[in-house]
Amino acid sequence: MKKGQQTKNNILQSGARIVHQSGYNNTGIQQILKSAGVPKGSFYFYFRNKQDFGLQLIDYYANFFYSRLDNYLQNLDNSPLNRLRSFFSEFIQELEDNKCQGGCPLGNLSQELGDTNEVFREKLNQIFLQIRCKIGEFLILAKEQNEISDKYDPQDLAHFILNSWQGALLQMKVSKTMDPLKNFDNLVFKTILNQGGHDAGPFISTHKHQ
Amino acid sequence: MKKGQQTKNNILQSGARIVHQSGYNNTGIQQILKSAGVPKGSFYFYFRNKQDFGLQLIDYYANFFYSRLDNYLQNLDNSPLNRLRSFFSEFIQELEDNKCQGGCPLGNLSQELGDTNEVFREKLNQIFLQIRCKIGEFLILAKEQNEISDKYDPQDLAHFILNSWQGALLQMKVSKTMDPLKNFDNLVFKTILNQGGHDAGPFISTHKHQ
Repeated sequence: MKKGQQTKNNILQSGARIVHQSGYNNTGIQQILKSAGVPKGSFYFYFRNKQDFGLQLIDYYANFFYSRLDNYLQNLDNSPLNRLRSFFSEFIQELEDNKCQGGCPLGNLSQELGDTNEVFREKLNQIFLQIRCKIGEFLILAKEQNEISDKYDPQDLAHFILNSWQGALLQMKVSKTMDPLKNFDNLVFKTILNQGGHDAGPFISTHKHQ
Repeated sequence: MKKGQQTKNNILQSGARIVHQSGYNNTGIQQILKSAGVPKGSFYFYFRNKQDFGLQLIDYYANFFYSRLDNYLQNLDNSPLNRLRSFFSEFIQELEDNKCQGGCPLGNLSQELGDTNEVFREKLNQIFLQIRCKIGEFLILAKEQNEISDKYDPQDLAHFILNSWQGALLQMKVSKTMDPLKNFDNLVFKTILNQGGHDAGPFISTHKHQ
């Protein structure tokens, strides 16, 4: 990586962490520069202004998710539905390690800016459409391989799974437990989609009184 | 209603609208007082400080949701699952009228304060548990009446439905379309829960290419 690209990447990396913790409006450029250890001039060399930085930051987050999804899509060692499940499981493990802090950086920005900044909203919406499309690719393959029932339209199901995941992340944040993410994993992949009539056994419940 | 109670209610009502639009941190007490048309002294007569106001505001929002849920629970004109669906449909209609703005006030506060204010987080978490419990009551009845498959645990399903709804609201906010809420309604109530093997027909898809 060239030095210029590395400096830009440093700024984005520091910004990604700080914005994830504090939100976009609560993060100042100074704070990012201090954390990245670069002078103010560097920031304005790479970014026109804070909004330009914010939009590039969204791409930075998005590329992370795209590349993870692509890795699971291209790994043919497992069935499509199992690979999609593993994609979520990796995040579940990381969020547990991270003590249920943060949630989804794109979901957080959507909540913060969805009603107030049309440029950010449109950008975030495009990214979510792209992620939904990639989740749909797993489900198209899963349907071709009879892993999921014919009654599901893969794109509709992808839409539903992505939204349900976002809601589970929000509830993880407010409950500070892993229950919502475990509930997501169990309900989507065991109870709802494994509907071949076989006993879901111990996977069916995430709450204690069973 | 006594005059004192009415003044307090005015403050909460104005605050509810402003906090829903701008978030908790971005809302000043002055702004609420101006909108409610009451002097500063009144505020501190009813609320110890902004946090006390915020906590009472959460109860104000919560009571609205509880009372709506109770109305649908107690109305015996329709089956439990249909009543739960109607509960969500009423919100879907209102959010459409409101041009996909705002979303869930409790979800917004959870996103904003879940990682930064432990008192609010705990309060919000209690409220969500209560709402989940009430959704569970519909599903217990639905299971008793064989409206839903035996494979579902009503409380787990209630947890999942509430989280999925929260995620659909977030995606409504960022897409500024009703698609995520229609997808929620179709997938949960038609495709997933009406699984008697009969054709889901035109309800199965919310996206255009079908």
